[in-house]
Formats: sequence, structure tokens, C-alpha cells
Amino acid sequence: MDLFRAYTIADALSILRDHVRLETPGERLGLREALHRTLDGDVFAPEDVPAFDRSTMDGFAVRARDTFGASEGLPAYLNVAGEVLMGEAPRGRLEVGHAFRIATGGMLPEGADAVVMVEYTEELDAQTIGVTRPVAPGENTIRCGDDLAGGTLLLPGGHRLRSQDVGLLAAAGVDTVPVRRPLRVGVITTGDEVVPVEETPGPGQVRDVNSYTLGGQVCECGAEPVIYGIVRDDFESLIAVVRRALDETEAVMISGGSSVGRRDVTVDVLAGLGEPGVLFHGLAVRPGKPTIGAAIGEKLILGLPGHPVSAMVVFSLLARPLLDPGYRRFPIRARITRSLSSQAGKEDYVRVRLSRDGERLVAEPIPGKSGLIATMVRADGLARIPLESQGVAAGEEVEVIPF
Amino acid sequence: MDLFRAYTIADALSILRDHVRLETPGERLGLREALHRTLDGDVFAPEDVPAFDRSTMDGFAVRARDTFGASEGLPAYLNVAGEVLMGEAPRGRLEVGHAFRIATGGMLPEGADAVVMVEYTEELDAQTIGVTRPVAPGENTIRCGDDLAGGTLLLPGGHRLRSQDVGLLAAAGVDTVPVRRPLRVGVITTGDEVVPVEETPGPGQVRDVNSYTLGGQVCECGAEPVIYGIVRDDFESLIAVVRRALDETEAVMISGGSSVGRRDVTVDVLAGLGEPGVLFHGLAVRPGKPTIGAAIGEKLILGLPGHPVSAMVVFSLLARPLLDPGYRRFPIRARITRSLSSQAGKEDYVRVRLSRDGERLVAEPIPGKSGLIATMVRADGLARIPLESQGVAAGEEVEVIPF
Repeated sequence: MDLFRAYTIADALSILRDHVRLETPGERLGLREALHRTLDGDVFAPEDVPAFDRSTMDGFAVRARDTFGASEGLPAYLNVAGEVLMGEAPRGRLEVGHAFRIATGGMLPEGADAVVMVEYTEELDAQTIGVTRPVAPGENTIRCGDDLAGGTLLLPGGHRLRSQDVGLLAAAGVDTVPVRRPLRVGVITTGDEVVPVEETPGPGQVRDVNSYTLGGQVCECGAEPVIYGIVRDDFESLIAVVRRALDETEAVMISGGSSVGRRDVTVDVLAGLGEPGVLFHGLAVRPGKPTIGAAIGEKLILGLPGHPVSAMVVFSLLARPLLDPGYRRFPIRARITRSLSSQAGKEDYVRVRLSRDGERLVAEPIPGKSGLIATMVRADGLARIPLESQGVAAGEEVEVIPF
Repeated sequence: MDLFRAYTIADALSILRDHVRLETPGERLGLREALHRTLDGDVFAPEDVPAFDRSTMDGFAVRARDTFGASEGLPAYLNVAGEVLMGEAPRGRLEVGHAFRIATGGMLPEGADAVVMVEYTEELDAQTIGVTRPVAPGENTIRCGDDLAGGTLLLPGGHRLRSQDVGLLAAAGVDTVPVRRPLRVGVITTGDEVVPVEETPGPGQVRDVNSYTLGGQVCECGAEPVIYGIVRDDFESLIAVVRRALDETEAVMISGGSSVGRRDVTVDVLAGLGEPGVLFHGLAVRPGKPTIGAAIGEKLILGLPGHPVSAMVVFSLLARPLLDPGYRRFPIRARITRSLSSQAGKEDYVRVRLSRDGERLVAEPIPGKSGLIATMVRADGLARIPLESQGVAAGEEVEVIPF
């Protein structure tokens, strides 16, 4: 560990990824229960879908070659030899010069290789249609296995199941899947000055906000928070609770107690728990400087700043990608409404409110002192001012990471 | 209802908002349980936060005027008369020419109006410091009520609680809040050709995908899906289930059965349930044309297309804003990698995969027939081609609505 190096968020993530491996036991769940869970192994298609050739339009199943050369002036006349009923197999085979009435989703009769849309036919009598436009073989049909060929990989292990993923599994006939038990994440607040929310803070005291904000953020990762409450700022108290949390959970978030200048026991505790221990102490990130990254065995421990806003920002940038690796967050570009200065050598993350200005978005920095959680309530995301930048001018485009 | 009008998503939303009012009874919950619930009334700050003036830095509490004119060459010398301990009220009052040692969060002693950062002091002996830079009154402090003045509106009724909102309530000392019971949303799949996921589809049959995808999307709105399963395409069966769903839920999503050319009973059923009934039938939206919007009393009923992709797209564009009005979704701008044609007079929503290309994002349209749910699995969002546009050229910027 190079104590004098300026670690960015990307540096810190890469160091943590080298040491941390968050795994939970698997279980098998039905599709509905599996929503938002992470797959515990690859899932393959058990069979061809569809298992038969199918029409994608309302119209007539035909042999494509019977329609070649057809036009409005010179339609191809076909004999309506049957109708494919929904949910039933076609009765009989399609002969040369014949057509079967068919609806969207209907099964193509043997002998048919295309469907003419009803719009390009004219009914001459109950038995005869004129086709006014030719179709190519395969047109307006889905072939057996076209949606999903049996044996193909549907979703890889490690993928977190969204609504459409569960839909894909349903379409493939997969009705139970192996998933991992949700990660459990311990949340510990340190600080002799912190009191529970239901108490009235005395002089010099503040309420415990981080148990709630970090607990909520853990839920948003699809993980289960285990709240250990408020622990006093002394080595023995803190190490006892962190040991228990390491036994009971896969990752631990400790907030408070990591800024220089207060009785700082978090680093001592993390150094005393085992290998590899503290991986970095301090980030070149604002807010978020007094962050500690550690691993004990393959479990993750983060020492987050005590200020609620800083703790939320660091959790969002550093913990979420590790706890919820399937989460894809695309930066939004927006014009900043006010000039902002930034120290070169620091990544700044500025709370902004987004709004539309015609086709474009504008990002308005939220005023107010950084410790105020109310500024997070008004914000829609974080505008990033990169390490090497000394600021942005009003009207310049910035990258905003949405919450 | 003008049957020949081309309704866009914005039109449809505005019509539905005029008729639909989705309300559930309230209950009072603790903060942790209230996460992601919707507030059932405004919440105000019960008291000033902080209840005392507080330091935001490690250093010395001083009277600002005692430091005026101080410099490195000519420090202001102050007598260290005490120390403010965390969690305790300062012992005694700060006299002229005195300083109290103080840590971040510490309570300012009476008489002090600013804090000098420890970096701008030099300790001469245990009793004396030199201040090398002046501070202005209020500097490095937060005043009583600065974070939250008692009586201010914290969050308005109707707001859905995120992690930071729960944090704000904790900071304000609000430990229970009035919230609405989650909306219940009925999900009905119609179609004689639809079979449950655990069955092997016979000829002409397909598995029920929409119960899973729409059920999942309902969960993502913070609502509770009530799955009614597969209902046959006949008037009596469908009206019985829709009646039950209207009794048991606040909104009903019916998928399938709304495209022209199949035995279409959904419109007849919706027309037969009461006022105001069907509000529009058909959207100038692709995919999503055969969508029906209806209200019975103030409850919402949507007839969604049967194709799983179309049903998901319409849910995302039309149902989500109504079921989850607090959800803010900011469009992302990205360069499209392929030219796409579009019929003027239709809004097109094209599934795209996003990736980074340096500072910018590119949107790659997902190939594959529209009915395939697998295309939704590969997509990150929907690129919108507006009503009046006839298409976009490769390299042009499009607006992408992320999932």
C-alpha cells in the first residue's frame, strides 16, 4: 500500500476486485420468486422454441413459389383448402395452388413455407383468393427454433434477473432456476456523538442517519442489510462488533471514525482482523477522502466517511459496483448551469438536479453545505469533474451519474 | 373518443391521467419498513437541526474578531481555555482572546462564532496557539437550524421514499411516517393458445410469458402484482375475471386479445363494465399499436398487446408513469450505429444496446424479430424515433429511455 498515492474510484475498485470475492450459497427458486436474484450458474434452453413453424401475421399460409410474379393487375389465384385454428395443429397438408387461412401465432401446415398478409389478398369467393403481391420463402413466419434453439445459453451465471430475463426463461419453459441467496451486508455506525433516531440529540450529538441511508442503499443492490446500530469509538467495542459482522455477513460497511483528527480506531481494528487487511486509506475523491478499503479473507470491509452525504456518495461509487456487479449505470450528459472549481488531483462528484431544456438536459448544482442530507434529497445524480480538471465553466457539458 | 386519431404515448398518458386516480389506504410505518413506499401526506420537520451551533472542522472555536488581521508573519495569539469533548456541552463560556479546542461536529461554546482549522494554527505551548489566518464570523460552523428549521416541509405527500429521503427523515428525528399501502395491480393473460410455463406447448400454442414480465414490471413500480393467470378468449370468462380483479386491485393489465383479426373480446368486456369505459383503442406507436386504455370508476385498465416485447414496451412507457409517478427517468443521448427507417405518423421505440465510445455513448439496435423476448434481454433501453420523423441515419444522435 502506497499511503501517498492519490487513489481514484477506478483505482480503488480495481484493488478491491483483486481481493474480494462475495459469494453466497445457492438455492433453487420458481421464476416469480427469482426476480432480482442473481443466477448461480449458466441456464440453457431445454428445447427448441417455437417447436413448430409459426405465422407472424394474419393472412394465408402458402407455398411462396405459388405467389411468384403475382401483382394487383395479375393476382395469383389460390384455393382456400382449410383454416388453421389457434391452439390446434393444421388439418391436412398444403398442396400446390392451395392456401390455408391462418392467424398470428398459428402453426404452418406441412407444405407451406410463407404467409401472405391479409392486406395483399382479395377474396373472390369462399373457396378462392387472389394474391396481389408475391412473398419470399420464410416471409411472415418464425421457424422451429428461431426464437431459441435448444441448448443455447439463455443467461450466464452471475446475471441478476430483470423482468425480461424472467420472461425469457418462461418462454423457454424453464420454471425453476438456481439462484444465490442474497448477499448480507453489515452496517455499523461508529461515533460517541451519535444517538438513535428516536432520541433527542444532546449538546454535541447527532442522530444516526447512516444506518438508514446505507441500509437503504444495500437494499437497492438486491442485498440484505444487517444493522448493527451505533458502536462506541473504542477499539474493543468496535472490533467485537466487526468480528460478529464478519461471521454473519459477506460485506461490512462501517461509517464514521475514519477522518484524521478524531480518535480513529477503525484503521486499527481493520489492521487487527487478518489478511490482507487495509488495502488503501484515503481517496483523491471529494466527497469521500477519508475512505478505507479493506478485505478480510475474501470479504469486503469499507470504512466510509461519517458525513451522511459523503458516505452515500462513496457507497454509490464504490460499494454498489461490488455488491451488485450486474447493475449497468449509463452516464447522462448535461450542461452545467454554474461554473464549478475543482482542485486538480481530485475527482469531484457534485450533486446536481437535472431538468430538460428542449432536447438537452441541464444539471443544476445543489447549493448547501456538504454535510446536509437534504442536498441528496434534491439531487438526481452526481456530476463528475475528473482528476486532472480544474473545474468546469457554466454551459459546459458534464457527465452525470444518475442515482 | 376519436377512433381515427393517432394517439401518441403523451396523448394516451394525458387522457388516462384525466380519468384515473390510484389510491390506497394509508398506514404508519417505521423508517426502515417505509423505504420505497409512497408518503400518504406531507411530512414536516418537528424541530431545529442541529439544535445547537456546531463546528464543521477540526480546530479551535474562537471569536472571529480576535483573528482579524492575523497572518503567518503576525499570528493572533489566543489562550487555549478548554476543550469541547464530543457528545458533551462545552464547559464554560469563551472569553475575549480565548480559544477552545474542538473537533468536527463539536458544539460551539457560548461566545464563539467561528472555528479556525487546525492547519492555520501553531501550538506555542499547552496553553497558547498562534492563528495564522483570519476567519469570518460563521466560518467552519453550522448554526442552529441551518440543516433543517423546525416546521419546514421535509417531503411532500405522494413522494416515493428513496434511501436519502429516509436519511433526511432520520436526521430530522422523524421515526415513523404515514405511507400508502402498495398499489395492487392485477395481471391477466388472455388467449386460447396460451399455456402455463410448466406445460409443453402443443401445435399452435405458446407459453405465458406476460404474467412473468408484467408481474416483474409491476414489482419494479413498487406495486404488488396479483396474477390471475390465463383466461380463455371468450366474453363470459374474461368479464368474470376482470370483475374480480377490479374488486381486488387498483389497476388491471390485460395482455393479448387486443389485435384486430383475432376473436377480440377485450374491448367488448371493457365496454361492458361501467363508466367511463374505453378511452382509446390503438396507439400511433410501434410496437404497441393494439393498446386499449380504459378506466372503470377511477381504476385503470390497460389492454396490452399479446406479444411479450410489445406488452413490456407499452407497460414501460404508459403504465409505469401512472403506477409510479415519482419515478424520474432521464433520457440518455447516444449515437445510433445503424440507419433506421420509420413511418411518419408513428412513434417508434427501438430496442438498443448501449456502450461507451470514449466520452460518448453509442446505441446499437438489437436485430431479431420483434416478438422475441430475447431482444429485450440484450437491450439496455429504447431509442425513440419521434412521430414526425421518417427515420434516423447511422451516426445521428437519438434519445434512449433506459430500462
